[in-house]
Amino acid sequence: MSHHRRHHHPHPHLDQQQHRSVYEERFQGIPVKELFPEEKTGWVGYVEWENAPERKRIASELLKTKKFTPIPEFQFVPLPDTNPILIGHRWKEYHEALGLKSIVDFSWEIVQKEKHDMLHVLDFPYNGETRPEHLLGDGKVTQNRHHFVRNHGGVPDIDPDVFELEIGGLVKNPVKLSLRDLQDPSLFPQAEVTVTLQCSGTRRREQINVYPGDGDELINAPWGEGAIGTAVYRGVPLKKVLKRACGGVLPECKHLEFIGADTYFKKGEVYNYAVSAPWRKVRANEEVLLAWEMNGEPLPKLHGAPLRVVVTGYIGARSCKWVYRINALSEPSFGPVQRQEYLYYSQQIGKQNALVSNGFSIQAMPVSSAIMKPSDGQVIIHDGKINLQGWAYSGGGNWVERVEISPDGGHVWYAVPPENLTKKHYHAWRLWNYDVPVDAEGWLEFCVRTWDSSNNTEPTYVRSAWNWDLHVTSSCHRIKLYSVNRSRPATAKRLKQLEDHGDSFEPLTKPLEFTVEPFEEYEAACKADPREPED
Amino acid sequence: MSHHRRHHHPHPHLDQQQHRSVYEERFQGIPVKELFPEEKTGWVGYVEWENAPERKRIASELLKTKKFTPIPEFQFVPLPDTNPILIGHRWKEYHEALGLKSIVDFSWEIVQKEKHDMLHVLDFPYNGETRPEHLLGDGKVTQNRHHFVRNHGGVPDIDPDVFELEIGGLVKNPVKLSLRDLQDPSLFPQAEVTVTLQCSGTRRREQINVYPGDGDELINAPWGEGAIGTAVYRGVPLKKVLKRACGGVLPECKHLEFIGADTYFKKGEVYNYAVSAPWRKVRANEEVLLAWEMNGEPLPKLHGAPLRVVVTGYIGARSCKWVYRINALSEPSFGPVQRQEYLYYSQQIGKQNALVSNGFSIQAMPVSSAIMKPSDGQVIIHDGKINLQGWAYSGGGNWVERVEISPDGGHVWYAVPPENLTKKHYHAWRLWNYDVPVDAEGWLEFCVRTWDSSNNTEPTYVRSAWNWDLHVTSSCHRIKLYSVNRSRPATAKRLKQLEDHGDSFEPLTKPLEFTVEPFEEYEAACKADPREPED
Repeated sequence: MSHHRRHHHPHPHLDQQQHRSVYEERFQGIPVKELFPEEKTGWVGYVEWENAPERKRIASELLKTKKFTPIPEFQFVPLPDTNPILIGHRWKEYHEALGLKSIVDFSWEIVQKEKHDMLHVLDFPYNGETRPEHLLGDGKVTQNRHHFVRNHGGVPDIDPDVFELEIGGLVKNPVKLSLRDLQDPSLFPQAEVTVTLQCSGTRRREQINVYPGDGDELINAPWGEGAIGTAVYRGVPLKKVLKRACGGVLPECKHLEFIGADTYFKKGEVYNYAVSAPWRKVRANEEVLLAWEMNGEPLPKLHGAPLRVVVTGYIGARSCKWVYRINALSEPSFGPVQRQEYLYYSQQIGKQNALVSNGFSIQAMPVSSAIMKPSDGQVIIHDGKINLQGWAYSGGGNWVERVEISPDGGHVWYAVPPENLTKKHYHAWRLWNYDVPVDAEGWLEFCVRTWDSSNNTEPTYVRSAWNWDLHVTSSCHRIKLYSVNRSRPATAKRLKQLEDHGDSFEPLTKPLEFTVEPFEEYEAACKADPREPED
Repeated sequence: MSHHRRHHHPHPHLDQQQHRSVYEERFQGIPVKELFPEEKTGWVGYVEWENAPERKRIASELLKTKKFTPIPEFQFVPLPDTNPILIGHRWKEYHEALGLKSIVDFSWEIVQKEKHDMLHVLDFPYNGETRPEHLLGDGKVTQNRHHFVRNHGGVPDIDPDVFELEIGGLVKNPVKLSLRDLQDPSLFPQAEVTVTLQCSGTRRREQINVYPGDGDELINAPWGEGAIGTAVYRGVPLKKVLKRACGGVLPECKHLEFIGADTYFKKGEVYNYAVSAPWRKVRANEEVLLAWEMNGEPLPKLHGAPLRVVVTGYIGARSCKWVYRINALSEPSFGPVQRQEYLYYSQQIGKQNALVSNGFSIQAMPVSSAIMKPSDGQVIIHDGKINLQGWAYSGGGNWVERVEISPDGGHVWYAVPPENLTKKHYHAWRLWNYDVPVDAEGWLEFCVRTWDSSNNTEPTYVRSAWNWDLHVTSSCHRIKLYSVNRSRPATAKRLKQLEDHGDSFEPLTKPLEFTVEPFEEYEAACKADPREPED
């Protein structure tokens, strides 16, 4: 039921007619379609912004002349029951204003091709969540076509044969490497790593359901429990590339900045997507990969083809897709995604006191877990045990040690036996399933909590972890189930009675058509235990 | 926000065309319009069922030949945001099937006249809730036009000049009394009592929001906090009438049954409304009145004109409206309202195990309270204190001693000083208001609890009091407020900044159009407290 409570306030979006003329439009005398060229052959949908300050300035001025659909906000009203749930009017309009509508169209085309059976949380930039049955049904590894996607802009379409990666900044020798160079095992040793990636917005709906939070300009997608997935990535450790191709980093290097070929917007300014990871993390070898393969297949376009970064144990946002430039820096990237977003504010910081300096940066992910089956609100007829299934994960260098299930809202906890968990990985989740003993009937609250290899566990309630930006919902995941325990004679008798009357148990709240208690029985019960004291 | 979460599942209702022909229809050879006559001149909309078993049987058979709109159920979807919230298709169809459509029409006509400015929870049978501003704004007494109404059938239209009350059963002398007799102070001493009446469904929405419960055939109305009201009733104590007119009750008399002139339906059978109150309660004199005046005015038709029962401290359902017969019985009434409804089940009894014999009867009302102002979800800009207002009540012979407010979800409790409470009554609520000290900002949960003269207080959470029939939501009432404390310099500065930019604080979740932190300030903050450890 958590899926129906609240939503972004719907806003009228601008008439599409308005955008049709953009391609014929001129800005400062130049046709808009010529202002922001795809300058490299074979790199469709990529515009260079970071090395083109004058182009950035013009784009910013052009955007100032336009009106855009207002930003949807989290409100005390339910999310629409549609798929896609939200439509990215504003981000589409930004692209269209710059003559980049083809990026918008291509992105959705690729979604249809690569991810047709997802819960589409936002159509553009594309955000899609794995359905519970695919998350559990695929084994510990999530199939490429079901793996969640959280994009921040459009999908560029880059020919792997002309692709090149540029590495610069605080390195001994700046270089350019082709994909063929990177894939040459005689140049760089390859690695295959099982990695869980998670959006820090996973389970955000639970926070939204408690209190609305920040209405970010780029929609803080209202994720459920499926913004997490696990894949085996093949690539080369970034450390090896820095060492062998660049001769290593300079001593001042503290962070490696990754720049992606997508176009990103923030408060009227235009950027390429830019994030960074610490050198301390990169030098741990297999913890930061440059990957071109996912589950034995070439990286899908939605996942960053031809090349992406994979940062283990960190928020998914650091695993830059379509990476084409890496800069060695003396501090974290000043890209807005790194510095102005994915910040963890306190519960008491809100719109009146939020400054970028008082939220800390979300990098490593904490221990968390979710019940994926049954789904919230289900009626379960059982014989004393209910089977629960889900995932458990810890980032930041930890792995999952123990998963515990409570059938009573968090009083009694049953540990899932080790044989009911998938095997341990340094950088991946464990899937679990467990038959929880349940005697009680009626509405019960089930919850899960996980303990990791540093003995961290999860906060008990959503309120404990609620924060202004609604990130990192790591509190114990709770679902409500209606328990009908057929192993109790009275319940078995009633179920039989229902069957005999041809009456249905569901929907649960449909009144029974027949009177269950003969008048005489009722009268006898009232005599045996009178309604009122006798003296 | 609790007002938008869930609702009765909408069902297609039967086409009105179907009902138009009812008046021309025949059943067992007799025109339907002649089957159930209004037999007494001046008693419009009243059909005698309890003394007419053959008529009851025919009605029941006639109903079996019809199809009715399915019963709406409580589901995990929001209530419609309409006024009326729910439409009583099925109950209307029952009346129409018996040729009693005029009762349905008259009832809504009277609502328009007597209660035009209510939150209409259900249009027929009429259920209307007092708006918060009327509940608090009228002083401790609720104005007649704003007082809540919970009817179970149509509104009969009875001429006071021909009205008579019949008293029988276990009394020495059965009698019939005219209204003039009852109002004659030389026959019966009169009393004026300030009485709070409350539907046991008050605040049911809070239970619905946690888990759906029983979908009763007669809709368990999704009340908010306004299904409670206080009025000064004038009438005669029932005890005096029994004593002076009937020569007293026989020793076997344990309950006084009240029969109302409205038509009531239960699982295909037809009744007059019937409930009862214990003789022990009645003999306490002013605790059970036969009333014809409400707040100095003749009793409104919606409230039971010309005569109703007022049972102090009990669930409103016992205060029978349009009462025309009283039976002295040796046990509680077997009327379905008394015996099959208003039962308090345990949390673990549900559809699979609910028997009328295992719910106890809701008679006396427990201590409870509600915050009526501000409303749930409001943003409050304040200077260190937030004013809260509401009601507090205890039935069952107790009165309100202390009201306490918590600004932090139930950890710290402030007692409302006595001067901020309306005066004590034996049978009425106390209204309160209090400036709660609030330092913290952001989303806070406020709650109220009340202690009564027997030291009873309220359960802490809705879950503690949740029950299958969703009755008696007496847990601490909780609301969420977004606190902006202007007495804090940083907050005052930001509010000023917003004003200077011509930007609005609300809606709360609308992102700011301007960047609050100059790049230099942010960079300086990152230098002063680096994002990552230096060693």
